[in-house]
Amino acid sequence: MADKRGSRPHPRGRRPAGENTRAALLDAARAEFTERGFDGATVRAIAQRAGVDAAMVNHWFGGKDGLFVAAMEIPVNPEEIVHRILDGDPQQAAERLLRTFLSVWDTNGGGALTALARSVASHEQAAQMMREFLSGMVFGPVVSAVAPDQLELRAALCGTQVLGLGMIRYVIRLEPLASAEHNTVVAAIAPNLQRYLTGVL
Amino acid sequence: MADKRGSRPHPRGRRPAGENTRAALLDAARAEFTERGFDGATVRAIAQRAGVDAAMVNHWFGGKDGLFVAAMEIPVNPEEIVHRILDGDPQQAAERLLRTFLSVWDTNGGGALTALARSVASHEQAAQMMREFLSGMVFGPVVSAVAPDQLELRAALCGTQVLGLGMIRYVIRLEPLASAEHNTVVAAIAPNLQRYLTGVL
Repeated sequence: MADKRGSRPHPRGRRPAGENTRAALLDAARAEFTERGFDGATVRAIAQRAGVDAAMVNHWFGGKDGLFVAAMEIPVNPEEIVHRILDGDPQQAAERLLRTFLSVWDTNGGGALTALARSVASHEQAAQMMREFLSGMVFGPVVSAVAPDQLELRAALCGTQVLGLGMIRYVIRLEPLASAEHNTVVAAIAPNLQRYLTGVL
Repeated sequence: MADKRGSRPHPRGRRPAGENTRAALLDAARAEFTERGFDGATVRAIAQRAGVDAAMVNHWFGGKDGLFVAAMEIPVNPEEIVHRILDGDPQQAAERLLRTFLSVWDTNGGGALTALARSVASHEQAAQMMREFLSGMVFGPVVSAVAPDQLELRAALCGTQVLGLGMIRYVIRLEPLASAEHNTVVAAIAPNLQRYLTGVL
């Protein structure tokens, strides 16, 4: 490791040296997640590929989930999203889910979502990471906690509604949804999303 | 017009000379639709910009709608889509809508949809054309024919569900929806889509 690091110059001005470790881990993570998927990729292999100690993953990203999210440039921690959605009456989980996504996406006017849409439509790597993210880190855990059956189907159905809302509101910006208040969006969509979560399919 | 055409060489081999007219109309249409929107753009202005007679729009594209669709590279005539969806019991319009989109998208494995998603996430021009297409040519006419009220909201909500299904099934390819049979997809999604079309919002 010392050899590797010593073989290229590091900026030693205002930028912390650790930023190089962080960037190397992100590059290695994107490569490993793409080759092996979220479950197949190990922290050990990613760290090895980056030429750094595996403890750096926890140090910089809090673990494999955080590294994955950082690699996808998702502006929020999925564990926090899931926690917010599950905190309360399961029959109102859809409303909380929608409010959570709306507030995350609104923070930068949907820019992150637009970049993500471009990315998943352009690169198989990004599409695969999006699959892992949707099924493994957000809708999967939510559905597991509230649904009686057909977990995978429900998770994918939730994906259609939530991602579709994001595309129409932030990417295509179709009115009246593009400018609608959160309450309006929630009133219109939550009953449908709730059926995907806990209703009869 | 003769001057314009005479000022550049035309291939006169196997390619029909009219193909140049067609291509010029497509270029002019993309520019006019972007600047003025679908309603604001006129056949006359598009033809003038292309340096050809307005009758060429009917000749090559069957009218403004057909020209718009060709400019967006949508592989199917929206009038035909709308006709198929409206032909029958309004309470089953959602099922027909889903079956229509599934069969259109399936024809090239979702490739056209992936290209469209990349395009709308990359270019404001494409996003604007997509808005016109969704609200003016597909969901707008369908909702107008079956819905009691809130036409624009219903059309946009239909957009979230249909485009979201397309993104999950064909672009991100999340299972089980990516490989599900049409009947499975329709059974799961049609009730939700039907609420957007004719239900209580």
